[in-house]
Amino acid sequence: MTTEMLRFEVSEYRTRLQKAREAMDQAGLDLLIVVDPANMNWLTGYDGNAFYVPQCVVVSKDKDPLWFGREMDANGCRRTAYVSEDRIRWYEDQYVQSDTLHPMMVLGQIVTAEGHGTATIGVEKDNYYFSALAFEVLSGALPNATFKNADRLINWQRIVKSKREIEYMRGAGKVVGAMYQRVSEVLRPGIKQSDVVAELTHAGTRGVGDYWGDYPAAVPNIGAGADASAPHLTWSDRPIRPNESIFFELAGVHKRYHCPLARTYYLGKPTPQISDAEKAVLDGMQAGLEKAVPGNFCEDIAKAYVGALARYGLVKTGRSGYSMGLGYPPAWGENTASFRDGDMTELRPGMTFHFMTGLWYGDWGMEITESILITSGQVECLSSVPRQLLIID
Amino acid sequence: MTTEMLRFEVSEYRTRLQKAREAMDQAGLDLLIVVDPANMNWLTGYDGNAFYVPQCVVVSKDKDPLWFGREMDANGCRRTAYVSEDRIRWYEDQYVQSDTLHPMMVLGQIVTAEGHGTATIGVEKDNYYFSALAFEVLSGALPNATFKNADRLINWQRIVKSKREIEYMRGAGKVVGAMYQRVSEVLRPGIKQSDVVAELTHAGTRGVGDYWGDYPAAVPNIGAGADASAPHLTWSDRPIRPNESIFFELAGVHKRYHCPLARTYYLGKPTPQISDAEKAVLDGMQAGLEKAVPGNFCEDIAKAYVGALARYGLVKTGRSGYSMGLGYPPAWGENTASFRDGDMTELRPGMTFHFMTGLWYGDWGMEITESILITSGQVECLSSVPRQLLIID
Repeated sequence: MTTEMLRFEVSEYRTRLQKAREAMDQAGLDLLIVVDPANMNWLTGYDGNAFYVPQCVVVSKDKDPLWFGREMDANGCRRTAYVSEDRIRWYEDQYVQSDTLHPMMVLGQIVTAEGHGTATIGVEKDNYYFSALAFEVLSGALPNATFKNADRLINWQRIVKSKREIEYMRGAGKVVGAMYQRVSEVLRPGIKQSDVVAELTHAGTRGVGDYWGDYPAAVPNIGAGADASAPHLTWSDRPIRPNESIFFELAGVHKRYHCPLARTYYLGKPTPQISDAEKAVLDGMQAGLEKAVPGNFCEDIAKAYVGALARYGLVKTGRSGYSMGLGYPPAWGENTASFRDGDMTELRPGMTFHFMTGLWYGDWGMEITESILITSGQVECLSSVPRQLLIID
Repeated sequence: MTTEMLRFEVSEYRTRLQKAREAMDQAGLDLLIVVDPANMNWLTGYDGNAFYVPQCVVVSKDKDPLWFGREMDANGCRRTAYVSEDRIRWYEDQYVQSDTLHPMMVLGQIVTAEGHGTATIGVEKDNYYFSALAFEVLSGALPNATFKNADRLINWQRIVKSKREIEYMRGAGKVVGAMYQRVSEVLRPGIKQSDVVAELTHAGTRGVGDYWGDYPAAVPNIGAGADASAPHLTWSDRPIRPNESIFFELAGVHKRYHCPLARTYYLGKPTPQISDAEKAVLDGMQAGLEKAVPGNFCEDIAKAYVGALARYGLVKTGRSGYSMGLGYPPAWGENTASFRDGDMTELRPGMTFHFMTGLWYGDWGMEITESILITSGQVECLSSVPRQLLIID
C-alpha cells in the first residue's frame, strides 16, 4: 500500500466507507459489489484507465474494502489506492474477453472464500461496467446468495461534496475558464473544428497554476450551424463558417473532478432567432439560479427554467440539469438527482450540479450553461466564464 | 436522412448489413439488438457521444436497421447515419436515469410493434452498454421472445477491414507519428507530465494533412519510473525526472479508426536492465512480426514473442495483442481475437492488431508496440515511429 498518489486524506476515505456501510444497512445488504469507476475511486482512491475490463471494490461490514481486477492492474491499485496488500485480488489474463471464461467466476470464488456465499449482496445493476453476462455469471457462481439492485447507492452518498472536493471542482472551474479563453482567441471563420478542439484541449490539459488538467469523462460536444440541433456530436475538420452559431460543451477537470460548461458563439451579427434564444436562456437561468438554495427541490429549478422559456414560446422536453463531480468515461454525471419535474431531491449545501439549459430544435440549438454549488446562502457558479452569447466579429 | 457526414459509401454499409444478416442466420437469430457504439457505427454510420444513455441499432432480416435512442439524440442520428426517418425511434427524457422507468421498456414495445414479440433475439450480453438491468427490463417486456447471447457477433464481422477502413487506419498511423514527434520535442527533465500530455493531445487532434485527429477511445496511459509497473495509469503534474524511463501508450485516431502505439523514453543513459529489456522486446517483436502472415494463427505471434522473451529470462503473462480498429470509449479493442495461447484465429489480409508487447514488473516496465496490418505478403506496420527505446540526452 502506497499513498503518495492519494487525492484525499485516509480519514476522508474512512468517513466515506462509514457512509457506505450505513447505506448498506438501510438497504439490508451484507455485501456491496461496486463496479462504477467513480464509486471505486470515491471509496478507495483507485484511479486507473482499466475499467474496460471487469473490476470492482467489494465492501463488507467489517473488513476493509477489497479490490478485484485484472492481474496487470493490481500494481495500479497499489500505487493509487489505500487498499492494503492482503485486500488486493485479481484474475489471470486468460479471463479477459474470452468465450469460455469470465472474471466474475473468480469473483464468485473470492466472495465465497470471504465467507459471503449466502450473503445478501448489492450490485450496481444498471452500471456500464456491470453487463448482463457479468450478472449472470456472478449469480451462477454464488447460487446461495441473494442479490439486490444497489444501483446508485454509492452515487447518492457522493452528492454532497467535501471541502476538498469543492476545492478541486473550483479548480476545474478555472480550467474550463482557460479552455474558453483559448476558444475565444482562436475561433475565426476558416479555422478547422479539429484545430479549435486541439487548442481547447491543450489549454484544458495544461490547466491553471496548480490545477493541472485531468481528462474529461466525455470529450467535447460541438454543434455548428444545423449540427447544433443535436447535443452530442463531436468534431471534424469542417471549417468554422461565418454567420453561424457554434456551441461547445466542455469540462475542465482536476483530479477526476469536473466542471462542465457550455457556451455558444456567433461568428458575425446574431440573427433575431439566436438573440431571442439568448435572452430566454439567460432569463431562465437567472430564474433557476434564484431557486438554487437549500430547502428547495431539484424540480423547482427545472420549473423556473422551463417556465421562463415558455414566456418566450420555447419548449424544453429534456431535463435541465444533473448532479455531477467525480467521473469516468462515458459521463461525468452522477446519475442521481436531475432538474426535472417530480425530482424532489432537497437541495443541500455542498451539492454540485450542471445546470444544463441547452436547447435543441429542428435545425438550430443553443447551449449556455453553468456548473453550480449549493451553499448555505446564494448559489455559487463554479466558473466565471461570461454568461452570454459570445460574439466573434 | 442526410448522408453528408457519412464516412463510407452507402454501398459499404449495405455490404456490412448483409454480412450481419448472414451471421444472424448462422447464429439462429431473427433479430439482433446492437448496443456496442462501434458496432452501431459500423452498421449505420451513427456517430455520437451519447452512449452514456441506452441506445441501439435493431437489425432484422428484412427491414432496414432501426435506430433507437434518447429523444434529443435522434437529430444526431439524422445527421450522421444512413437510417431513414421512419426507422428512427426514441424514448422520452423521463426514462433517463430514473428509478422507476427504463428505456428498455420502450424498446420492448417497439420490438413488439415491429412484429418480433416472439422472435429469437440476439443481445450483446457482455457489452458495457447492456447492463444487467437493461437485460432484465427488456426480457421482462418481451416475455414471449427467446434471447441468445450474441456478444461479439458483429465485432467478428469487423475483423477484416475494407480498403477505406485501412486508409483511415494508415492515416491514424500518421497521426500517432505526429504525436510522438511532439513528445520527442518537449520531453525533458522538469516538464510536467500534464504539459507533455497537452502537447501530444494537441498534435493528435490537429492531425496530419487531411487526417484530422478524432478522439481516442481511451486516453493516454503513462508510466514514469516505478509507475511503469502499472499499465493503465494516467498523468498528474509530477515533473519528468532525469535518469528515469517513461512509457506512453497513445492512439492516433481518424474518423473513429485507431492506430495505438506505445513507446518508452529514457531520460539519460539507460540502465542495463532497461537496455536488456529493449533488446528482448525488439527481438520478440521481430519474431512475432515474422509470424504475422496469412494462414498462421493469432497464437503463433504470441508464442514467438513470449518465446523470445524467455531467452532473456523475461516472463509475460498477459496477452500480447488484440484486434482493433473502430472504437468508442472505454477501449479501442474489438474484443475478438487476441495474441495468446489457444487463440486459433487464422490471420487473413485486412486484419489489424495492436501487437501489445508491453512488460510490467514489480517496480519497472517497458512498452514498445506496433499496430499492424496483415497483408497477402509481409506484415505492414501502420506507423513509422522508430521502433526502439527513445533516448532523451
